[in-house]
Amino acid sequence: MPLRTPLTEKLGIDHPVLLAPMDVVADARLVRAVSSAGGFGILGGGYGNRTWLAQETAKFGGLHAPFGIGFITWSLAKQPELLDIALAAKPAAVMLSFGDPARFAPAIKSAGALLICQVQDEAMAAQALAAGADILIAQGTEAGGHGASRTTLDIVAAIVDLAAGRVPLVAAGGIADGRGLAAMLTLGADGVLLGTRFYASEEANGAGEAKRRICAARAGETVRGIIFDLSRNNVWPAPFTGRCLINDHARRWMGREVELLQQVAGVSADYMKARAEGNFDVAAVIAGEAVGLIHDIPPAGEIVERIVAEAEQILQGRRNSSRPLPNSIEEEVR
Amino acid sequence: MPLRTPLTEKLGIDHPVLLAPMDVVADARLVRAVSSAGGFGILGGGYGNRTWLAQETAKFGGLHAPFGIGFITWSLAKQPELLDIALAAKPAAVMLSFGDPARFAPAIKSAGALLICQVQDEAMAAQALAAGADILIAQGTEAGGHGASRTTLDIVAAIVDLAAGRVPLVAAGGIADGRGLAAMLTLGADGVLLGTRFYASEEANGAGEAKRRICAARAGETVRGIIFDLSRNNVWPAPFTGRCLINDHARRWMGREVELLQQVAGVSADYMKARAEGNFDVAAVIAGEAVGLIHDIPPAGEIVERIVAEAEQILQGRRNSSRPLPNSIEEEVR
Repeated sequence: MPLRTPLTEKLGIDHPVLLAPMDVVADARLVRAVSSAGGFGILGGGYGNRTWLAQETAKFGGLHAPFGIGFITWSLAKQPELLDIALAAKPAAVMLSFGDPARFAPAIKSAGALLICQVQDEAMAAQALAAGADILIAQGTEAGGHGASRTTLDIVAAIVDLAAGRVPLVAAGGIADGRGLAAMLTLGADGVLLGTRFYASEEANGAGEAKRRICAARAGETVRGIIFDLSRNNVWPAPFTGRCLINDHARRWMGREVELLQQVAGVSADYMKARAEGNFDVAAVIAGEAVGLIHDIPPAGEIVERIVAEAEQILQGRRNSSRPLPNSIEEEVR
Repeated sequence: MPLRTPLTEKLGIDHPVLLAPMDVVADARLVRAVSSAGGFGILGGGYGNRTWLAQETAKFGGLHAPFGIGFITWSLAKQPELLDIALAAKPAAVMLSFGDPARFAPAIKSAGALLICQVQDEAMAAQALAAGADILIAQGTEAGGHGASRTTLDIVAAIVDLAAGRVPLVAAGGIADGRGLAAMLTLGADGVLLGTRFYASEEANGAGEAKRRICAARAGETVRGIIFDLSRNNVWPAPFTGRCLINDHARRWMGREVELLQQVAGVSADYMKARAEGNFDVAAVIAGEAVGLIHDIPPAGEIVERIVAEAEQILQGRRNSSRPLPNSIEEEVR
């Protein structure tokens, strides 16, 4: 029995599972894999590289499932012409995160695309709704990469109350399996957005070593902060910080960010060299708190199927049980 | 239809809702109110004041529902004789948090009480299970008062996997309504522990002004850190920090903890004076991230009933629905 929600109806998809537009990692191949499996792939337009964007958007020909394209809003504002390249690819939706979407909303909507806005607090959600957002994503601090400090449990409930059913709501941050999807649907969300889980997929455009480190990492082995942004000279506006796996470089600088800033020229040169060499003892593997739930690198389509099947079984088990004994349901699922 | 779980069966209670043993705030009156309503009240033994403990434990006569008594483990280790006073009151369970429970487990178990251990990571959970814990509480960073950095969504899933059905598991941190209870049961927990929600109850032994501030606070208006502990000269062992409402004092010192430490004598004198005067612009109101879900100060028994009824309706709605449309279920509940 499919998990139909206002989100799946709005996007015209089979499963309430969205691919986070991870910069470069969520390339056209990964987007196609997620969308073809009945989820909703979103291309990682990120900071906006014109050549890469043109190259990837050219690969959506023949894809009959809907897909989206995502941008970092404050970065898109520096090269707004990239939005035209994105819209020319006829995405079902454009996702904007980290900044006021108002400036870009008219072009997105007049092109016939839906506007998906990712928010980290109530003020951002109100701003997104005022700009005409069709779908909201409430992102908790558990998420990998950039985000803010409120937890998923807190921010999802808060945005459910604020949106009050006006638009479908997606939960993001800390979700990587069917339990997480089922719990977020129960909390009142209409679907989930997954990053790290899809990073550790066959199709993701990431280094094999990064994927292996995600599989090996245990829960609790990530950290949110400004170390990797400082180290790569990529300053983000407050309140946004970034979460990554704790590696040697993170351990070296945690709690010593001011010192890092004082030595930034040298640190940055070393960091960029390590990044180019794929040395992940220094370069950050961007990943979220859900790493503890991730142990393999399957095809992305299998991830979608697995998560949906597990969530359906949990929710169905409860529906068919004469008494809702959550642990028995959990055991059935395993 | 009642929410029966391995937790309700183990404790012999009607509803999978536990009162957090908030130091002094969870006094005998509040414990009686929660237990009488079918939840499980736990007395806030906290740092351990012998006179207070003797006075409160004397008030459980005639209570026919099971109840518990909680201690801060590292503090109890300084006056272990308090455990005898607690056990003499015949609690159904003793709850230990923040420290190795092994030293106290034999006395608790030989007195016929269950051992409930609250943990913040996998190592603490393994330690608690090795000590013979009968019930585990996985506490996320959303919780008010002392705790650590992992989020509820993350730590509950991690401890569900670690405990693997050996003992009932309770979720704590960020939960204050039936949505939260339903979501945590769906994630695999067997019940929830609530602090802040019960602080804002008629029976809680807290200042009226503190309760009013909890009701007025919006989601996101709490902070976890060491400011209030530094200010009251109450140093906790790492990795534990405390969450409270953001007030003038917190705003003044956030990010300036080293400076606060340098001026601690003066700050502390002012802080203790403010505390004695009930000036909550300076003194901390200990509260968790769920403050945004709390808007009233009802009797504690009504809180239990309300949360359970909401969770039952969400879970039952899903069970009886021909298709699990989470938003329709949410709307039914409102």
